[in-house]
Amino acid sequence: MVLAPPLCPQSSGARRVKQPPSGPRGRRTGSATMLLHRAVIPCLRQACRLQSVPSRLCIRACSTNDSLQPQCPSLAFSGANSSTRGWRVMGTLLGLGAVLAYHDHRCRAAEKSSRIYTREEVKSHSSLETRIWVTLGCEVFDVTEFVDLHPGGPSKLMLAAGGPLEPFWALYAVHDQAHVREILAQYKVGELSSEDKAPSTLKTSDPYADDPVRHPALKVNSQRPFNAEPPPELLTENYITPNPIFFTRNHLPVPNLEPETYRLHVVGPPGCQSLSLSLDDLYQFPKHEVTVTLQCAGNRRSEMTQFKEVKGLEWNAGAISTARWAGARLCDVLAKAGHQLRETEAHVCFEGLDSDPTGTAYGASIPLARAMDPEAEVLLAYEMNGQPLPRDHGFPVRVVVPGVVGARHVKWLGKVSVEPEESYSHWQRRDYKGFSPSVDWDTVDFDSAPSIQELPVQSAITEPKDGETVQSGEVTIKGYAWSGGGRAVVRVDVSLDGGLTWQVAELNGEEQRPRKAWAWRLWQLQAPVPAGKKELNIVCKAVDDSYNVQPDSVAPIWNLRGVLSNAWHRVHVRVTP
Amino acid sequence: MVLAPPLCPQSSGARRVKQPPSGPRGRRTGSATMLLHRAVIPCLRQACRLQSVPSRLCIRACSTNDSLQPQCPSLAFSGANSSTRGWRVMGTLLGLGAVLAYHDHRCRAAEKSSRIYTREEVKSHSSLETRIWVTLGCEVFDVTEFVDLHPGGPSKLMLAAGGPLEPFWALYAVHDQAHVREILAQYKVGELSSEDKAPSTLKTSDPYADDPVRHPALKVNSQRPFNAEPPPELLTENYITPNPIFFTRNHLPVPNLEPETYRLHVVGPPGCQSLSLSLDDLYQFPKHEVTVTLQCAGNRRSEMTQFKEVKGLEWNAGAISTARWAGARLCDVLAKAGHQLRETEAHVCFEGLDSDPTGTAYGASIPLARAMDPEAEVLLAYEMNGQPLPRDHGFPVRVVVPGVVGARHVKWLGKVSVEPEESYSHWQRRDYKGFSPSVDWDTVDFDSAPSIQELPVQSAITEPKDGETVQSGEVTIKGYAWSGGGRAVVRVDVSLDGGLTWQVAELNGEEQRPRKAWAWRLWQLQAPVPAGKKELNIVCKAVDDSYNVQPDSVAPIWNLRGVLSNAWHRVHVRVTP
Repeated sequence: MVLAPPLCPQSSGARRVKQPPSGPRGRRTGSATMLLHRAVIPCLRQACRLQSVPSRLCIRACSTNDSLQPQCPSLAFSGANSSTRGWRVMGTLLGLGAVLAYHDHRCRAAEKSSRIYTREEVKSHSSLETRIWVTLGCEVFDVTEFVDLHPGGPSKLMLAAGGPLEPFWALYAVHDQAHVREILAQYKVGELSSEDKAPSTLKTSDPYADDPVRHPALKVNSQRPFNAEPPPELLTENYITPNPIFFTRNHLPVPNLEPETYRLHVVGPPGCQSLSLSLDDLYQFPKHEVTVTLQCAGNRRSEMTQFKEVKGLEWNAGAISTARWAGARLCDVLAKAGHQLRETEAHVCFEGLDSDPTGTAYGASIPLARAMDPEAEVLLAYEMNGQPLPRDHGFPVRVVVPGVVGARHVKWLGKVSVEPEESYSHWQRRDYKGFSPSVDWDTVDFDSAPSIQELPVQSAITEPKDGETVQSGEVTIKGYAWSGGGRAVVRVDVSLDGGLTWQVAELNGEEQRPRKAWAWRLWQLQAPVPAGKKELNIVCKAVDDSYNVQPDSVAPIWNLRGVLSNAWHRVHVRVTP
Repeated sequence: MVLAPPLCPQSSGARRVKQPPSGPRGRRTGSATMLLHRAVIPCLRQACRLQSVPSRLCIRACSTNDSLQPQCPSLAFSGANSSTRGWRVMGTLLGLGAVLAYHDHRCRAAEKSSRIYTREEVKSHSSLETRIWVTLGCEVFDVTEFVDLHPGGPSKLMLAAGGPLEPFWALYAVHDQAHVREILAQYKVGELSSEDKAPSTLKTSDPYADDPVRHPALKVNSQRPFNAEPPPELLTENYITPNPIFFTRNHLPVPNLEPETYRLHVVGPPGCQSLSLSLDDLYQFPKHEVTVTLQCAGNRRSEMTQFKEVKGLEWNAGAISTARWAGARLCDVLAKAGHQLRETEAHVCFEGLDSDPTGTAYGASIPLARAMDPEAEVLLAYEMNGQPLPRDHGFPVRVVVPGVVGARHVKWLGKVSVEPEESYSHWQRRDYKGFSPSVDWDTVDFDSAPSIQELPVQSAITEPKDGETVQSGEVTIKGYAWSGGGRAVVRVDVSLDGGLTWQVAELNGEEQRPRKAWAWRLWQLQAPVPAGKKELNIVCKAVDDSYNVQPDSVAPIWNLRGVLSNAWHRVHVRVTP
């Protein structure tokens, strides 16, 4: 283990001391600041309009020296789509984290170290106590002194602590500029060892060995199968969730499908031929685009576990994400195969191409009435936020069922059929159902409860986080709210006193269409912290346009699988005196 | 005031003592009992199957003497439709209240009194303390001794205390038989004074003077306009609510419309002629029937008032009822007028023929998309439970919007039009909206909230009643559950301990159709009373097929108009030691 030399000896013990610019560097920085200021201010203004970001940033740049270039190519992240407005704005803001510095005393070239470190060593530097290291290419940086200066907020930079910056820069592409690299160069402490420069590979005997590389910001609840959620502070940064941090709920290893040979089997009605559709065939159907929030039935399960143990992954409030999906409408494909609405209840069954060692594929179904309703906008999606589906999200084709629990959005779709009964899949019949708190594993009768389709109204707080300390004066609270079945969110109430009194939050994000409110609203509330308060019990609850509300507490909705956890979301914070 | 002579001196202080049959009356009754037994038992068995009524009744009749006939004609109640299965069964059961007696010592002719009483005097005998008097035709009866023997339960008979029996016999027609009249004859204490034999009339200067006669079982929340709900013990006796006790929510005096001259004005789209439809014209459209539960937005408002004052009528849990409605589908009528679905949001506005002194009519609207969707089954209804609409329920035509708040089911319908905006009616724009608990009459912005359309999931306990005393051993809990938007009720949880532990209730009533669960489920739970318990805090909560649940408590959903009161319903009862 090589200890990192302190980069800024004069700043030890005085990390937040601000010094006026002085000497030749200060003057040189002054003119560069003006240039950057002109480039950055309009962007910031747009951000303030769109996301109500406080515009109190003290903007000052350090240098425009372009000489420092990366020596290793960046990792490519297929989903890094910076074209969406929401991303671009936040990307810009986060980019400022490296472009801008508040204090001229930080504007000096870093002494480059040629010391060699392993990835393991870098990983051990992931807290303020051990100092914060990151890598870019094969270079290693100690950014401890920069954490508090990161305009996107310290917490965002901390997500990369102990690991590579590339996945974050891929998300927020504005980082990838010469002046950002120059800032970073000041903090260089060494390089990666030669064997650590190549990305690590998994063992091939592992059925999950072929799973794709994931974004390090994801909080992993299960590695095999891979289940992970974005951290709350990233979740509501963007109305559209960037693909690499979209929550991932896999039940089995990720199949590696070739787009050229992929075929979707659509079983025809009796007496009709089945269809075998290539990707090109699917592209021939009218392309339909829709913004849809997906939520796992187990989102916020960890709160149920706190009350009483359940079977299931420990999701926090991040098993929910929103994307712009594009593909063929299921109703068009079914009609092409000869299907039509029936008098009697029927179901469209989906089979994935992911399967367990016995060959059993993931499966689920939805009612035919929903599938055939053009207004329900059920998709066979091949695009996610303008990109081909990432492998973790069903490449090349998945089902997207707006307003319905994630479990029915079958990924790596292999087969579609219309049946008189629901799918006989384990996940349709023996999972993803709600029960009374009185039902346990000895008494549960899975046939007695309907499979979850539409989800109930939901909301959660993403900022501040539970256990955090907030400034006295004013607190900003952010979160998301969504309801199933296309029901719009009409109000979010926020309480600072555990639910005794309430304030109405401001709803942001795209307007919701009547009856087709498939995507969430983001919300925020800026509220004065009552004088003398040492702690706040922050609570949120949403109301949808059927005026359904969230239940007050977890215990009465507890169920043995820990699904449908939509009680008021509660966050406890301390207030700085 | 004439005090009633005690009819059965030997039963004073020993009202529940059971004596074996003896003497000639006992023998005579024996053979009559067999006859009645054969007639009644199959009916009772059906009732037990359908409504899980305990079949522990000890059946014994008194006489089949037909000699006693009423001397005044019964009041006619137009909605008394005994043809529905549910009613017929319960009617039979209630009829038994007079047909059958448990104890032969009661079987003797009553001494007829010729004393004369006023209706006011009768009215003063409405409790066990003042004795229980009722009238039939012009005869007055003291049925105090029979109250506990009424097989339909004492509480049902008590509904008629101090008033006429006819409205109840009209509901439960099986009472109107010779042997029932004979039982009653034993309890005769006198007759009505001649001026009281004619029904009272209202003053004609009163705008409400022409309002119809109402059923006395209704609990009146407001006389002008008339607003009333059935008592809980009648509400869930029948899956279909009998017309005379269907909750009534009037905003204005009831118009008295002539069916011959009635016209419905349907405004056509630009460039098309409007329609002026007579009742006969409406009958030409395909007749569509659907069972729909209507609920007032203010149902259970009294629970909100207990927390904090609100503006609105003090509804208990009875502002909800279910009927079989028949009429023309709105989509057919709109199509006939030349309307079709539009790309942009539009609304179907309804105007009633009830109006205030300024001529302003009641009005409301629903989205055009719902109106035009045949699956939404919106009706222009002219029949309620097989009868023409009663005047209080919109004679001759009202709107029925399945799954939607009662306020949009415009009664006495005069005009239908399609508009780009919602109805400008007060009741659409300045009422029937939900707000945060923080909003008061100084801060309310009615434009900030959507008008209530679909209602949230709801349930309530109808038996036992709050404050009642129940037997130790086993308790039977009954109630209703319903959700808006066609969402089916999938479960009702009941707690005896205020919500700490839960049991799943049995759902009764008609099966609900997927996506078209327009009508409620009745439910019941028979549960052992935990040994040693002196009181029970009974709670119910329902879950719909979107897995929406009711909130735990009232305060966090309190709103200044006291609408949308759907917190857990709570009933406190004592247990006999």
